Amino acid sequence: MEPTTTTFFDLVRDQIPLVEARMRSSPDQHHPQLQRAIDHLLASGGKRLRPALTLLTARMLGTDEEKAIGLAAAIEMLHTATLVHDDLIDGSLLRRGLPTLNAQLTPGATVLTGDYIFARAAHLAASIGSLPLMETFARTLMTIVNGELIQLFREQSGDERQDYFDRIYAKTASLFELATMGAALLRQANQEIVEDMRRFGYQVGMAFQIVDDVLDFAGEEARLGKPLGSDVRNGVLTLPTLLYLERRPDGPARAAAVRSRQLNEAEAEALVAEVLASDAIAASLAEARNAIAAGETQLEGMPDGPERAALRQLGKYVTDRAF
Amino acid sequence: MEPTTTTFFDLVRDQIPLVEARMRSSPDQHHPQLQRAIDHLLASGGKRLRPALTLLTARMLGTDEEKAIGLAAAIEMLHTATLVHDDLIDGSLLRRGLPTLNAQLTPGATVLTGDYIFARAAHLAASIGSLPLMETFARTLMTIVNGELIQLFREQSGDERQDYFDRIYAKTASLFELATMGAALLRQANQEIVEDMRRFGYQVGMAFQIVDDVLDFAGEEARLGKPLGSDVRNGVLTLPTLLYLERRPDGPARAAAVRSRQLNEAEAEALVAEVLASDAIAASLAEARNAIAAGETQLEGMPDGPERAALRQLGKYVTDRAF
Repeated sequence: MEPTTTTFFDLVRDQIPLVEARMRSSPDQHHPQLQRAIDHLLASGGKRLRPALTLLTARMLGTDEEKAIGLAAAIEMLHTATLVHDDLIDGSLLRRGLPTLNAQLTPGATVLTGDYIFARAAHLAASIGSLPLMETFARTLMTIVNGELIQLFREQSGDERQDYFDRIYAKTASLFELATMGAALLRQANQEIVEDMRRFGYQVGMAFQIVDDVLDFAGEEARLGKPLGSDVRNGVLTLPTLLYLERRPDGPARAAAVRSRQLNEAEAEALVAEVLASDAIAASLAEARNAIAAGETQLEGMPDGPERAALRQLGKYVTDRAF
Repeated sequence: MEPTTTTFFDLVRDQIPLVEARMRSSPDQHHPQLQRAIDHLLASGGKRLRPALTLLTARMLGTDEEKAIGLAAAIEMLHTATLVHDDLIDGSLLRRGLPTLNAQLTPGATVLTGDYIFARAAHLAASIGSLPLMETFARTLMTIVNGELIQLFREQSGDERQDYFDRIYAKTASLFELATMGAALLRQANQEIVEDMRRFGYQVGMAFQIVDDVLDFAGEEARLGKPLGSDVRNGVLTLPTLLYLERRPDGPARAAAVRSRQLNEAEAEALVAEVLASDAIAASLAEARNAIAAGETQLEGMPDGPERAALRQLGKYVTDRAF
């Protein structure tokens, strides 16, 4: 990670290993293959932006550190569980360049391992000792799974952009908002602060996913751990493609072709190149930056100090990473 | 249901529909196919013994009725979720004579529907508003899934009977003990009462599963909704088979053959007939009756009244049903 992007992590650098230790800890003896699977999943790590959001919000508001660590661990476990089932359903064999669980286990073992990780996530959340948090946690899990079902059944409202935003909310921003709102809930902060921090997490999460979708066109393959343009090839319409096709007469037909995976390799490659050469990339990034700007205004009423500054910096990092 | 077996239900007959309504209720709009799937799963119903245990325990101890209904609904949802994934993993196409979800949906949609039902179960449990209950609930989910993983990986301790009891505890008795213990926890009953009711639920659950396994040999196909001897054919060693093979010199070899599904149809049929003709059926039922007797002693310190009498009767029903 480059020096310029690390500073917001500095405040919580010592706490991240505590979150990871909490994720690895188990309340009871369980199957050794399960522990290996969990260790493998946790080793693939990721950027730990959600834990940083939780820990920074907690420090800014004065939330108990132990509870914040529990929340961060519960959210990462929940995220891990959904990835295990997603990769199985999509037949993905690699994630962040490492073999997925379904590349190593039978489908049945993969389903059950995901279930076990859901159970661990729920147990971590319950152990924090806050009913409002637990209720919110369960609701987030419903939001995520419902979003996946809508995607699986390819239901469309007729408003493609809205469908996209609904999808990335369910998939990504719902967990980001849980990360920030949860930390405020655990402080028993007043309703306004909880809601402001929820909105901040929401906007950061939306921006994060939009940027992720831009990187699928414009990132470096080595860093992504997957080929460029994989969304188009996998039948997924993300913001850059939507914005590009929206203004073209052949847009609806080509969008339908992407969705039904009827593009051949040459057509897919052409579409990816066209999107990349168009202003849809810049327009998508502008959308992400707008989200971050909207998020930042939510921080205005928060206690001034290094944590609030770090949260602002985290927002900037989300749109600036890898560009 | 025969008149003799219905009496213990009389006390809670009016509450069971409230439990079912709670299971159908949803905190938010979700996918219509999901609602149909949930309705289908809930329509298949079952005996509702767990809700009866929760409701009777709650009434006996004076637990708030609303909370008891929430608990009963949460437990049934949790059970439903595990069945959805189990049937998928086992490739079962029928349950209680009705098509399973995986017989109607793609594997991916089945996984996600199970996940959604898990989420609903967790949300129902969280909505009850008791942290000790929520913690116990999450722990039970871990117990169930861990048991399934042990079975999937066919791990053996060397003590076949112990493995069997561990398996049926994880699969069945853990939910029964949650049904009774949970109702006591929600009353904020003292530790001794909580523990006594946990033990009662545990014993009833163990007995229930042993009887279920006996019925796989000795029941009526029409009532079971599956062919007799299906466990042996599916490579599952249950108590009757274990007790029968334990005392035979060719026992270990034949147990291994069952486990690795190397029996042909004639051998499977022969084994089922031998078990049925042996005293292993009676010995298994004696084991179940001992469990119920042990459970009944836990009720001695409970408030005298129609609920305690009904719980005793429920125990008897478990071992006497269908014989």
